[in-house]
Amino acid sequence: MTQVYNFSAGPAMMPKAVLEQAQQELLNWQNQGTSVMEVSHRGKFFMELATQSEQDFREVYNIPQNYKILFLQGGARGQFAAVPMNLIGAKGKALYLNSGHWSGMAAKEARNFCEIDEINIFEKDQNGVIAVTRTDFSDIAEQYDYVHYCTNETITGVQIKQIPNVGNAVLVADMSSDILSTQIDISKFGLIYAGAQKNLGPAGITIVIVREDLIGKARTATPSIWNYETQVNTDSMINTPPTFAWYLCSLVFKHLIKEGGLGAVEKRNAVKAALLYNYLNNSSFYRNYIAEANRSVMNVTFSTDNDELNAKFVAEATACGLHTLKGHKVLGGMRASIYNAMPIEGVEALIQFMDKFAKENA
Amino acid sequence: MTQVYNFSAGPAMMPKAVLEQAQQELLNWQNQGTSVMEVSHRGKFFMELATQSEQDFREVYNIPQNYKILFLQGGARGQFAAVPMNLIGAKGKALYLNSGHWSGMAAKEARNFCEIDEINIFEKDQNGVIAVTRTDFSDIAEQYDYVHYCTNETITGVQIKQIPNVGNAVLVADMSSDILSTQIDISKFGLIYAGAQKNLGPAGITIVIVREDLIGKARTATPSIWNYETQVNTDSMINTPPTFAWYLCSLVFKHLIKEGGLGAVEKRNAVKAALLYNYLNNSSFYRNYIAEANRSVMNVTFSTDNDELNAKFVAEATACGLHTLKGHKVLGGMRASIYNAMPIEGVEALIQFMDKFAKENA
Repeated sequence: MTQVYNFSAGPAMMPKAVLEQAQQELLNWQNQGTSVMEVSHRGKFFMELATQSEQDFREVYNIPQNYKILFLQGGARGQFAAVPMNLIGAKGKALYLNSGHWSGMAAKEARNFCEIDEINIFEKDQNGVIAVTRTDFSDIAEQYDYVHYCTNETITGVQIKQIPNVGNAVLVADMSSDILSTQIDISKFGLIYAGAQKNLGPAGITIVIVREDLIGKARTATPSIWNYETQVNTDSMINTPPTFAWYLCSLVFKHLIKEGGLGAVEKRNAVKAALLYNYLNNSSFYRNYIAEANRSVMNVTFSTDNDELNAKFVAEATACGLHTLKGHKVLGGMRASIYNAMPIEGVEALIQFMDKFAKENA
Repeated sequence: MTQVYNFSAGPAMMPKAVLEQAQQELLNWQNQGTSVMEVSHRGKFFMELATQSEQDFREVYNIPQNYKILFLQGGARGQFAAVPMNLIGAKGKALYLNSGHWSGMAAKEARNFCEIDEINIFEKDQNGVIAVTRTDFSDIAEQYDYVHYCTNETITGVQIKQIPNVGNAVLVADMSSDILSTQIDISKFGLIYAGAQKNLGPAGITIVIVREDLIGKARTATPSIWNYETQVNTDSMINTPPTFAWYLCSLVFKHLIKEGGLGAVEKRNAVKAALLYNYLNNSSFYRNYIAEANRSVMNVTFSTDNDELNAKFVAEATACGLHTLKGHKVLGGMRASIYNAMPIEGVEALIQFMDKFAKENA
């Protein structure tokens, strides 16, 4: 079979070594004669996995001790609702920074639970190039219970690499698509959440990192599975957690440690993105429409500016084992999602194909 | 390795054939060169899986066409909150029938979202035997937007085998622990929900069966991932679904069809339960404290009435490959969960062990 590289935006590629281990022990985990997905979450073996995975994640991502880590269900979109339910307090209002589709969706959902102000922080210039125009909100942030933004917009491939300045206000980030891709200063955030299905594991588990002083403020009408205090007090087990997904996350963390930690991953991610953007910079056939400073290290969008050619590109790439390169329907064109699990060889194979396709179709 | 039978109350045993298929194709699903958990939920292959799994479930469980089937996240406890958010309407109030721990938990959670009345429908007689005492609520049910109950209480092993009479009111059932164990008349229900981790698949996916006329009544402050109308309109994909868990459910449905459908499963479940309860009826060493009519076909509780002996039983059983027989901490004693995936041989092995243990310790 052709070597396949899967550029899906999520669910996305998993590290091959993780899948191989999961396969090998699928029917006999910890020599128990059962699958990890069949055992009680309150049994000795799974409790050890839960504790160890939290420790590994804390270590890998350098998460300070005054932050709790939760393993929940419902995806980032679940947190779009859970965040206002848990964090709206005395000020009665939150600020949402809109940098594209997902941050806009978070704001839309929040409106069902609280009053918000929403600010567009990106602009498209006359050439169609998108740039983030503002990251300092220190003059207004303290009017709000929190300020919410999305670190990486997967549809356009817009990443906000500078942590917004919100003074002493609480900063909340949806990091679904770039968590664990590079070291960030966690202490700048009040709360970080991420659906797992890009860099952490499979779809169906959501990680929340929350500063201790923000726990215990949930409104009464908060579902208990999303009440941060309840879940902190029960080690994320107020109900049966998605055990198999959690297990896979635990393997991903171990894999990351084995690979040399976040420093090594960060370097590889930088190499992968540089290869692709350099190629795009030098191409007259393909274009990327994101300003240099905001080009995502995770999702690289490009287009031939011709819908027919784009469709041909996607079809031929698929036939060559380069899967799921079609851009999101909102934007069109192509998108290569190159999360942590994408090897450099995958990006090299993509560039080789792009070059061949450009020569054949210029 | 000793043959292991896992009597966990959930997460619980999966059909071995399902795990073997999942193992075999874990790194190469549908000959795509990728894992099912790595592909886009909106891609052709996963969309086909989603459609087919819904059809199979509808066929296997004989679900009428005027019911929608949703594949969600958050477990039954998520639905404890979602049900009042979606179903409380003009009457402004729901009735909760309490038959034990889980139905009580559902009522407790609902109080955070609406006004409820709660009725205890079980009694313990002077010998400690628990029985459900009332199933007709037709005189009061129509005052309420819905009547909620739990068909099977896993902790005590109390099953309500007669569908409560609620006249023309909307009946809502938590069937987490006995869904698909026997054919029921779906048309008697307004809504049925179940966490997957007993009879449907792994933990991390929740199935909701909802009658069409109940869709579209959600309050504004309903998280979109639990808004039944939103999820019906997006084929359970308003956000990324737990794709691998969904895939495993799809294999379980196919497996059930291959085994001869629900009729065959129902017969085997009856045989398994009869074997165990008959043994208990004839034993002077072990006791079960549930009235004949309410003895669960899924969770069989028993005790030697001696905490030390119970602990010895659990330890020795575990050493013999009979896992997770310890009763819930609320009740003590032992509990054998014998869901659909438990083969008759597992129950026979348990009885053989029980008999040996009784003779050695009488």
